[in-house]
Amino acid sequence: MKLPELDTPTLILDQSRLRTNIARISTRAHELGVDLRPHMKTAKCVEVARLAIEGHSGAITVSTLKEAEYFAGHGFRDIAYAVGIAPDKLARVAALRKSGTRVSVITDNIDVAREIGVRARDLDAEFEVLIEIDTGDGRAGIGIESDGLIAIGQALHGAPGVSLGGVLTHAGQTYGGKDTDAIAAVAEAERAGAVRAAERLRAAGLPCPVVSVGSTPAAAHARNLDGVSELRAGVYVFQDVFQAEIGSCALADIAVSVLTTVTGQHPERGEIVVDAGGLALSKDRSTATAPRDAGYGLVLDAKCGDSLPVMFVDRVSQEHGIVKAETGTLPFDRLKPGTRLRILPNHACFTAAAYDGYHVIDGGGEAVMAYWSRVNGW
Amino acid sequence: MKLPELDTPTLILDQSRLRTNIARISTRAHELGVDLRPHMKTAKCVEVARLAIEGHSGAITVSTLKEAEYFAGHGFRDIAYAVGIAPDKLARVAALRKSGTRVSVITDNIDVAREIGVRARDLDAEFEVLIEIDTGDGRAGIGIESDGLIAIGQALHGAPGVSLGGVLTHAGQTYGGKDTDAIAAVAEAERAGAVRAAERLRAAGLPCPVVSVGSTPAAAHARNLDGVSELRAGVYVFQDVFQAEIGSCALADIAVSVLTTVTGQHPERGEIVVDAGGLALSKDRSTATAPRDAGYGLVLDAKCGDSLPVMFVDRVSQEHGIVKAETGTLPFDRLKPGTRLRILPNHACFTAAAYDGYHVIDGGGEAVMAYWSRVNGW
Repeated sequence: MKLPELDTPTLILDQSRLRTNIARISTRAHELGVDLRPHMKTAKCVEVARLAIEGHSGAITVSTLKEAEYFAGHGFRDIAYAVGIAPDKLARVAALRKSGTRVSVITDNIDVAREIGVRARDLDAEFEVLIEIDTGDGRAGIGIESDGLIAIGQALHGAPGVSLGGVLTHAGQTYGGKDTDAIAAVAEAERAGAVRAAERLRAAGLPCPVVSVGSTPAAAHARNLDGVSELRAGVYVFQDVFQAEIGSCALADIAVSVLTTVTGQHPERGEIVVDAGGLALSKDRSTATAPRDAGYGLVLDAKCGDSLPVMFVDRVSQEHGIVKAETGTLPFDRLKPGTRLRILPNHACFTAAAYDGYHVIDGGGEAVMAYWSRVNGW
Repeated sequence: MKLPELDTPTLILDQSRLRTNIARISTRAHELGVDLRPHMKTAKCVEVARLAIEGHSGAITVSTLKEAEYFAGHGFRDIAYAVGIAPDKLARVAALRKSGTRVSVITDNIDVAREIGVRARDLDAEFEVLIEIDTGDGRAGIGIESDGLIAIGQALHGAPGVSLGGVLTHAGQTYGGKDTDAIAAVAEAERAGAVRAAERLRAAGLPCPVVSVGSTPAAAHARNLDGVSELRAGVYVFQDVFQAEIGSCALADIAVSVLTTVTGQHPERGEIVVDAGGLALSKDRSTATAPRDAGYGLVLDAKCGDSLPVMFVDRVSQEHGIVKAETGTLPFDRLKPGTRLRILPNHACFTAAAYDGYHVIDGGGEAVMAYWSRVNGW
């Protein structure tokens, strides 16, 4: 199978870029002296996971229990489910643990901490729980200096069948970093906050073996991770236009793209129409605040090369993408209906989620070497 | 199975609301004297389609060829694929037509019109093509008064194996209507534009049996559809917060919702966290320009009732939704972790696309009566 034979829109993964991205962050983790626990929320794909754990402990992070079940079914034995646990989900966690997979869960809430003990008893299960710390993101997590941190630790540590695994934080505000120094400063605040929370638990006589931090920008730019045991990052495997904008990568590193076909031309408005719309690209607009606003994605030629002027998806409806030139006019004679193009996503995690899997290519070649499936949903 | 037993996030469809929504637009089509060709881009579900065609010809509209293949496989025999055709997709259309399903395609481009003739010959196939008209939406479609309209008609009509089916338009700008009168005015411009385009084709000696118009707001508010043969609308089957905001329905009509669970509380910021994030809700922000900005969705109690203050999803990340009260503070004692809530989507087409199917309930009851599958992807 070759790229021109694929129906569009469809998702393309460039294996050589994938390997380069993985090697870069793998090396960073070694340099920083921490384990890498890659976050599979982006790729949701066992072939990518196997590449990402090379040279590390084999641990991974997931964002859904469906991912946990999928990866456990493919032999992964150390999985952190890094979204605050709802007590009703513990039955699925218990089933995974009984099948021999270490699945840890997280919470930032004292009521949930107590309920985990109740469920451990009711389900005759053992749970490993990390306390989620807020190191400035303002999404989830308990305050570093809060009384609640110690109370949660005590509730977990004191419950039969429950073990306190440590602390986990995600400084998502690295995404707001304007330059390398700003991101490094956020990464340091994340590190210091997680380590301080761990020290407070230990000072209270509680165990805290794991200190887990991370995001792709932090993984790229953290200056040191002293006191941290593991680094989580997800989108680095693919990268995207937003990550390029904040300096996590170059545009040429982006490993996933949407193959699309031109369906119409509107020279009077300086636009073409392609068959990748809001479902094929997602409605993510994270580049809206970036130096270069790529609309709903940056549009390149069929080989992801620069043979065409810079173009972007200006508007979308469900199955239509409206493409404009960033400056000047489009070369309509080279963009006739039927022409194939490739679109680099704003946010790879969201764009990839629209597809069941990846058509894998290598560099600029047209040969489709494999189809790798994804595990979507919950 | 009952609602509290479902894993979250998941998609709920209220059958009684669905039937009410379908009946309303079905009646409108009868009153307006046109066939209803419901657009399955929203529901992508055969059970919904069967309800939507009741009392009409049985024709449907689809947004992907995968939908066309799915519905043809379920016995639907008159399908309009209402997204500009890319020539390479004609082989799949030909296969459907050879299996006995009338599938029509659309284009607004003279090169595509000519290429359809070439493909009809090469594939030994017959194609029915409608010309897409732009009645002010600025997305796709050729100008009502353009020379190109006649040229495309002649190219199609003159090609062996190709039949010119008529004209089709979608005045998506109804979504920007500020009130019923404004939407009715857009619907009238859509009607008049499509009829005028049809008249121009007929005056040039070309056939134009089909004059197809529509959107949910136009279906709700068009004053007459004289000269039109069929009405297309899609989101009306489910409705959503945006449609309620522009007057297509009431909030109490919205038939789909996301069942979610509270995972954390942050009283210091007046927020709770739920397990429905950007993937479970989509990143659609269409209510950003509406009178009530519902963020990423309007949050109700577990029965979609009004026992809680008005809440909305203020921010999302992939698997986190951050919920705030519209005014005042949240009743944290009634929103403990583990509490189930229901989220009404901004844009039902996008939210539903994140799920493989619907858990069907009836009204405020907790019994899950059926699971209806969707056909996602391309």
